[in-house]
Amino acid sequence: MSEVYVIGHKSPDTDSICSAIVYAGLKGYKPARAGEINEETAYVLDYFKVPVPELLENAAGKKLVLVDHNEAGQCVDGHDQAEILEVIDHHKMNFNYPNPIFIHVEPVGSTATVIAKMFKDKVKENPTYAGLLLAAILSDTVVFKSPTTTEEDKAIAAELAQIAGIADINQFGVDIKKAKASIKGKPVADVVHVDFKDYDFAGKKVGIGQTELVDINEVYERQEEFINYLKELKESKNYDMVIFMATDIIKEGTELYFIGDPAIIEKAFGVKPQGNSVWLPGVMSRKKQVAPPVEKAYCQ
Amino acid sequence: MSEVYVIGHKSPDTDSICSAIVYAGLKGYKPARAGEINEETAYVLDYFKVPVPELLENAAGKKLVLVDHNEAGQCVDGHDQAEILEVIDHHKMNFNYPNPIFIHVEPVGSTATVIAKMFKDKVKENPTYAGLLLAAILSDTVVFKSPTTTEEDKAIAAELAQIAGIADINQFGVDIKKAKASIKGKPVADVVHVDFKDYDFAGKKVGIGQTELVDINEVYERQEEFINYLKELKESKNYDMVIFMATDIIKEGTELYFIGDPAIIEKAFGVKPQGNSVWLPGVMSRKKQVAPPVEKAYCQ
Repeated sequence: MSEVYVIGHKSPDTDSICSAIVYAGLKGYKPARAGEINEETAYVLDYFKVPVPELLENAAGKKLVLVDHNEAGQCVDGHDQAEILEVIDHHKMNFNYPNPIFIHVEPVGSTATVIAKMFKDKVKENPTYAGLLLAAILSDTVVFKSPTTTEEDKAIAAELAQIAGIADINQFGVDIKKAKASIKGKPVADVVHVDFKDYDFAGKKVGIGQTELVDINEVYERQEEFINYLKELKESKNYDMVIFMATDIIKEGTELYFIGDPAIIEKAFGVKPQGNSVWLPGVMSRKKQVAPPVEKAYCQ
Repeated sequence: MSEVYVIGHKSPDTDSICSAIVYAGLKGYKPARAGEINEETAYVLDYFKVPVPELLENAAGKKLVLVDHNEAGQCVDGHDQAEILEVIDHHKMNFNYPNPIFIHVEPVGSTATVIAKMFKDKVKENPTYAGLLLAAILSDTVVFKSPTTTEEDKAIAAELAQIAGIADINQFGVDIKKAKASIKGKPVADVVHVDFKDYDFAGKKVGIGQTELVDINEVYERQEEFINYLKELKESKNYDMVIFMATDIIKEGTELYFIGDPAIIEKAFGVKPQGNSVWLPGVMSRKKQVAPPVEKAYCQ
């Protein structure tokens, strides 16, 4: 049998990368990534002394297991000429595949939580796998602050921390988050694209990027630069709407920048935007608090 | 919390009904059905002295667990105004839902196999549940003759038979199948619709019905009647293609009747059809041997 690649989405985050590494390790497959890793993930891999997975630029002709995503728009190039064997995820489903395959999705805070549940006994014997899964849970739940967090995530994180020998979970979470929590000196295009996802909402092409910060003033200071870049991006890639979430993990809220119809934003969030942005207190999660209301606004 | 209904597809077969009954029983939910049960299922429910689940004509405003299907076109009316909590299935995925939910799909012969795996320990304690799941496996795999059958289905069926006290699995399977294996005296519309599914193949509306027989001559004798009915059905419901599979479980093959573009049928099966039908030796499974090649033919 030819090699099977376990791969996350095109803007890989810590959950996508760590889930791919652990799932591949447990099943005898090969971990891969569909894009560059971010600083947070680099910090985590370095912490546990685990190599960065191989970059798969085109998956045509390969066998794939998809982790942490299922929508075609977020999938590695060439996936439409690949054979998909399995999907392990925690996102909303928008998946169409001509053969029955193994699919397991749970509405929890991270794909890592799903994998930790599926392979409880095997993870117990492997402190590195436990550490990688813990880091992914803390990353995706923004150290349990995101509303995507479930009691299951917290309980499993506590077990994983014990196996991995991490004494202070919260401190470890903050250390992970800090690794990418400054945009100082970074080009706006890089900031917008480090965690960016494409959606198809009722036939409309919508792109949503997100950055997490410990001080949102870093974005406010360069506001014009961001707005201009988003305008360019919308034009050049034919988006109906481009959204950029600047999420302050200390203040617990998001300044949401958008280029597109302001009526959609008002309908989605019930607040009239000022110019090209709106402050959304308590909003931390693209998946739970931004993508669903925007999709709903387009579908009405 | 309002009642949760566990429900199969609109042309309920033994797998849809038995899976709904057992899953609902195990989780404290309510089993339901989205259409009339067939004679095979009636035989099985009578055998195990289990009541027919409640008919849900419209699911608007209800909470649902979908078993044995995931495509909107096969789902109970009003599902778009219902809350879907879970999907347990063994079919190809064509599911789009705005929130992350629990989804578990495996490429095995029946949904009953998936449920038996998920709740191994609880099923061990309940001979009736074991019997219902066994009947569903035997029904969906055509007593292990369908190419959808996996080694897992056979192994699990053997365990379930022991729990349920069924000594001769094959005989039990044939008894189940015989219960609906004659179309004598039945109107053609009833025969076509007792197991009928709608598909969206690249934007084309395709309907595929199937009947299983011990003697296919029963269909040959009334061939014109069937073809005329399929023509009417295509016109009145605006199908691009209507297919009716008359599957002989003894001869192990299917006479496939169709109304629609013959070029699609030729492309799908590599055989030039004669008039409105083609004999396909070895073809037993709509899911594995008919729907995928037809979809592929439309997509090319």
